[in-house]
Amino acid sequence: MGTAALEDLARRVRAASREVARASSAVRDEFLRAAADLLVADTAVVLEANLADVERGERDGLDQTSLDRLRLTERRVEQMADGLRAVAALGDPVGEVVDGWVRPNGLRVERVRVPLGVVGIIYENRPNVTSDAAGLCVKAGNAAFLRGSSSALGSNRAVVAVLRRALSKTGLPEDAVALVEDTSHETAVAFMKLRGLVDCLVPRGGKALIASLLEHATVPYVLDGDGNCHVYVDASADVDMAEAIVVNAKTQRPGVCNAAETLLVHADVASRLLPRLARSLADVELVADERARAHLPVSTPVTEADFATEFLALKLAVAVVDDLDAAIDHIARYGSGHSEAIVTRDVASADRFVREVDAAAVLVNASTRFVDGGELGLGAEVGISTQKLHARGPMGPRELTCVKWVVRGEGHVRR
Amino acid sequence: MGTAALEDLARRVRAASREVARASSAVRDEFLRAAADLLVADTAVVLEANLADVERGERDGLDQTSLDRLRLTERRVEQMADGLRAVAALGDPVGEVVDGWVRPNGLRVERVRVPLGVVGIIYENRPNVTSDAAGLCVKAGNAAFLRGSSSALGSNRAVVAVLRRALSKTGLPEDAVALVEDTSHETAVAFMKLRGLVDCLVPRGGKALIASLLEHATVPYVLDGDGNCHVYVDASADVDMAEAIVVNAKTQRPGVCNAAETLLVHADVASRLLPRLARSLADVELVADERARAHLPVSTPVTEADFATEFLALKLAVAVVDDLDAAIDHIARYGSGHSEAIVTRDVASADRFVREVDAAAVLVNASTRFVDGGELGLGAEVGISTQKLHARGPMGPRELTCVKWVVRGEGHVRR
Repeated sequence: MGTAALEDLARRVRAASREVARASSAVRDEFLRAAADLLVADTAVVLEANLADVERGERDGLDQTSLDRLRLTERRVEQMADGLRAVAALGDPVGEVVDGWVRPNGLRVERVRVPLGVVGIIYENRPNVTSDAAGLCVKAGNAAFLRGSSSALGSNRAVVAVLRRALSKTGLPEDAVALVEDTSHETAVAFMKLRGLVDCLVPRGGKALIASLLEHATVPYVLDGDGNCHVYVDASADVDMAEAIVVNAKTQRPGVCNAAETLLVHADVASRLLPRLARSLADVELVADERARAHLPVSTPVTEADFATEFLALKLAVAVVDDLDAAIDHIARYGSGHSEAIVTRDVASADRFVREVDAAAVLVNASTRFVDGGELGLGAEVGISTQKLHARGPMGPRELTCVKWVVRGEGHVRR
Repeated sequence: MGTAALEDLARRVRAASREVARASSAVRDEFLRAAADLLVADTAVVLEANLADVERGERDGLDQTSLDRLRLTERRVEQMADGLRAVAALGDPVGEVVDGWVRPNGLRVERVRVPLGVVGIIYENRPNVTSDAAGLCVKAGNAAFLRGSSSALGSNRAVVAVLRRALSKTGLPEDAVALVEDTSHETAVAFMKLRGLVDCLVPRGGKALIASLLEHATVPYVLDGDGNCHVYVDASADVDMAEAIVVNAKTQRPGVCNAAETLLVHADVASRLLPRLARSLADVELVADERARAHLPVSTPVTEADFATEFLALKLAVAVVDDLDAAIDHIARYGSGHSEAIVTRDVASADRFVREVDAAAVLVNASTRFVDGGELGLGAEVGISTQKLHARGPMGPRELTCVKWVVRGEGHVRR
């Protein structure tokens, strides 16, 4: 696909986005429900396309984790449909009057939430992202311009075909959901440069994708970055609570961005907490600093690199710190600005941690695993932003909108 | 200045930003008032430095507009001080609880407004931006990292010296306001790549600066872009009102981004409005399409390029359109997403224009010139964003903040 063909497609998606923006929320929600029904009805077609992708992946030597992410089942297709229905049931962010006032001269000012326009998503081999992301985009009045990976191309094509039939059935333009079928690196780069045609790009992928985006993108983007998350156990912490939170944050689902990667323990509580954790984290590889190792029978010395690494595995870095300041400094140095938790009984420690730790989410006496659109009440998420501009933390439908100033006068002119 | 020296300075500014973020609004406002007082007290020093810049500019053949923007007077310094005092009087955006709720499991969720951290400003030869921008940054709990132009270097140095003394006097770190004194292009590019050290970059300059930013920046930015603004006069418009608004939007201050550049007139009102405008816009060069020229004695044919140009001068493109759709399509094609106005008596036309025109600000029966932080009630502005992400339209102190999720539990773990 040449750049001209990509731009042509983008222009069609852009034209479609204007129609989606004008559609009522009733129509947009009807699309979501129709898509859910069609997806279930077409399960066999989707699974057949997916099986071909999986078999090709196996032949090409794709690793087991990637194959797991790629593979759809009847149950997973049902979950995709349920996801679309859940998004349909959410409130509509479009049209919300964010604030408004009247100026001394009588000029009436409002800021109103409106769709972004065309939302681009570049993502890797999970075909469920196709329906999740497209659903959220249309929910918020946008067109979805999708570029998935080559390994999932057949699956993505099948899901997009269903979504486009649902659009058509609801009276919305089919190009409101479009898939870029050329999965070459060159086309991904051209996609990142569709300034004026793509209003917001949300990358969902690894470090290579982010690096490419920082180098090439001229379209605005929201980064869904790494989660190098910490749990800090304060001197005053309830040790039972601390143990439960650390175990949950590390082991409940270690391969995701909101899992904890480093445990920081106040020196006063280390001798009580760490031996217990050594037992309850028996399946976890512990790398620890010298003071922590005194309380951890099985552990190896931690390195600077460990502190800077998002393991995404059953591995935990552990360090003993002298006080809250040392914990805050450690997080400022190594954290990725995702999710940071403190376990404490002390109000002053909780307040300082909340105020001084610079991250998308700070948690007091709760597992980092809660930092997720569903768990925090957004209903669904298009990703978790680790940047500060526009959206920070879990992004729901509202984060796929922007504001417009609406100013009303009666012939007002400026003096 | 090598990249290493720039990064060193950025690290100092970053460290200072953490102290500003912790400072109470009382302290930040005290800084703003102290800076205002010191600026007035030091007027002679600032003016002397400015005179040297102006004389150098004259020797270097700087054009008259640039010299005007560069030149400070006692009155202008007073206005800079007044600006700082006005910002001190504004409400503090930091700490605002944007929203919050309790999850079914008892987890308490809040989104709280927090400073961005380090705000970078790259700007051209207006020395008043130095105090305006730095004041707004510190107001919102940020450090200001400034990179002005070579032509204003002496003036900027003098103003920054005053601001740093005011910081010091208020107990805030001097590095909360820092000026990059190397004004080379290489250093500007290095500045745009200070990812992880600069949280948000606000460029205030022309097309070359924006192009450079799109090519080089890895730091997040908010674009203060062009204003190719339109006034559309609907069939039902009050002709007196339309005339007043068009004259105001074009001539009240033609060199700024919220001035109108193109007038679109509904065919039904062209014969009544255009001859009157020909008289009231006698000082304005009119370029018009064929149908408009039938009613405009002195005008030349308009080109595609004219429609796409932000004249920033007493020049106006004029076109007659058949209906509202044609006006909306014209604006979608040529507009820069800044400010777009309709003059109408018809509710349906006003509603459609407001809904369907995609711009930072849409105005009904009011001059585009109102799209300005002061006029719309923000108290002050750091620029007018023409992008959709994070901030759109006039940016006040609130747009120099972001949100942080604060999640509180009582030992909550995820099942």
